[in-house]
Amino acid sequence: MVDKTSGVPVHRQVAADLRERITAGEYAPGDKLPSERAMIETYGVSRLTIREALSILRAEGVVVTEHGRGVFVRPPASIQRLSRSRLSRAARAENKGAFLADAAAQGFTPSSSVRVRFEPADERAAGHLGIQPGDEVTVRDRVMRADGLVVQLAVSRLPRTFTRGTAIEEVDTGPGGAYARLEEAGHTIGHYAEHVGSRMPTPEEASALQLGQGIPVITVTRVAYREDGTPLEMNDMVLPADRYELTYEWAAE
Amino acid sequence: MVDKTSGVPVHRQVAADLRERITAGEYAPGDKLPSERAMIETYGVSRLTIREALSILRAEGVVVTEHGRGVFVRPPASIQRLSRSRLSRAARAENKGAFLADAAAQGFTPSSSVRVRFEPADERAAGHLGIQPGDEVTVRDRVMRADGLVVQLAVSRLPRTFTRGTAIEEVDTGPGGAYARLEEAGHTIGHYAEHVGSRMPTPEEASALQLGQGIPVITVTRVAYREDGTPLEMNDMVLPADRYELTYEWAAE
Repeated sequence: MVDKTSGVPVHRQVAADLRERITAGEYAPGDKLPSERAMIETYGVSRLTIREALSILRAEGVVVTEHGRGVFVRPPASIQRLSRSRLSRAARAENKGAFLADAAAQGFTPSSSVRVRFEPADERAAGHLGIQPGDEVTVRDRVMRADGLVVQLAVSRLPRTFTRGTAIEEVDTGPGGAYARLEEAGHTIGHYAEHVGSRMPTPEEASALQLGQGIPVITVTRVAYREDGTPLEMNDMVLPADRYELTYEWAAE
Repeated sequence: MVDKTSGVPVHRQVAADLRERITAGEYAPGDKLPSERAMIETYGVSRLTIREALSILRAEGVVVTEHGRGVFVRPPASIQRLSRSRLSRAARAENKGAFLADAAAQGFTPSSSVRVRFEPADERAAGHLGIQPGDEVTVRDRVMRADGLVVQLAVSRLPRTFTRGTAIEEVDTGPGGAYARLEEAGHTIGHYAEHVGSRMPTPEEASALQLGQGIPVITVTRVAYREDGTPLEMNDMVLPADRYELTYEWAAE
């Protein structure tokens, strides 16, 4: 199983063998891997080699170590995020916003904290919002929790011309959230666009989201447009990749 | 700028300061950072400290080192992938498939290599395709290149009942690709779903996609459904996160 004459470092061979067994489903998501002692026996290598092999798989996010309990195959992303239905007016009518719709669908207890501030738009925000750099925007900076754990960071920016005199400038935007307030003020939403990417977290994000080693973040920038095509809101979201799967559906055309 | 009495390791302080300047746009994407010599001067720290700070930012994918040229702020993702339009029948009529539509829209020279094989469906494929584990599927394993560089890995699986006797079992599926062949055979596509996630690459993916340190992959599993809701195809795609941004648009409802 391990070929000491192959020129490939032995710890890489062990990592490759474990990775293959995990991919093949021999060790399923959430399964505990064999003990160090058992792997030393199986592969005929040293404890250090096993530890180096596991360290590679940990950096890849393939396994997680739970101290005192052992090494486990990382479980699959557990929060399904279906963009269309979570943002529907029907969901808004029943809940306070998209994150509460997720919570209802997935059965977790949601909570969030919000800070509201006002600032001049930078180049990027101005580009997405169709305004001039320096124009004032209302910023809603949110930390979202599921069962007490932070699962999403979201910074929403709206041109202040659309938020003045509305509850969007308050900490509590009221039933249905900011989108409901925009529509009440006559800004009926016509369509949404989400721009999705991925990167490694900043140290602040890794700490807030309690990210394990080798776990990237998914970045989503959503822009909500009025029926006439005017951008109303830009929302920069950061999601832990080990917990979220995003689903988009559309009709063939 | 660096506080040697703060208890925060000095190289982390330097990394944090550089990260902030990059985020604020003082160093823009693609910009060269100051030389080591200049940074030693600015921060009043050792060469080793500067190197440790840059190593943190490299592992986060924030900067890239080009040997002999210097350290650069990573440029933004350059390939925009707009799901709806790239899969439209209009795009298929003009091109050979979605990847060629991307190439035409983004101005790169596309090429790809394909291997076709047949295998029994595993649990996951069977689940997405609505068939039994062990049922035969046609597998199209593709490596896609832009200007000669590998930019996407895509493994498509279709129940063999839909591909027998069609060019989908050939290396060259012909004009419009596999979706055009499915529709010719009477399987009109009704809708698509894409499931999007992110993780660190396997060593094989890192090598094939020439991924730099600290660059995750975006995973997209697309399922194409017939008008009656029967799944026709499941396509597992792996995209380098430093090159791709995925865009999804939908009407508010």
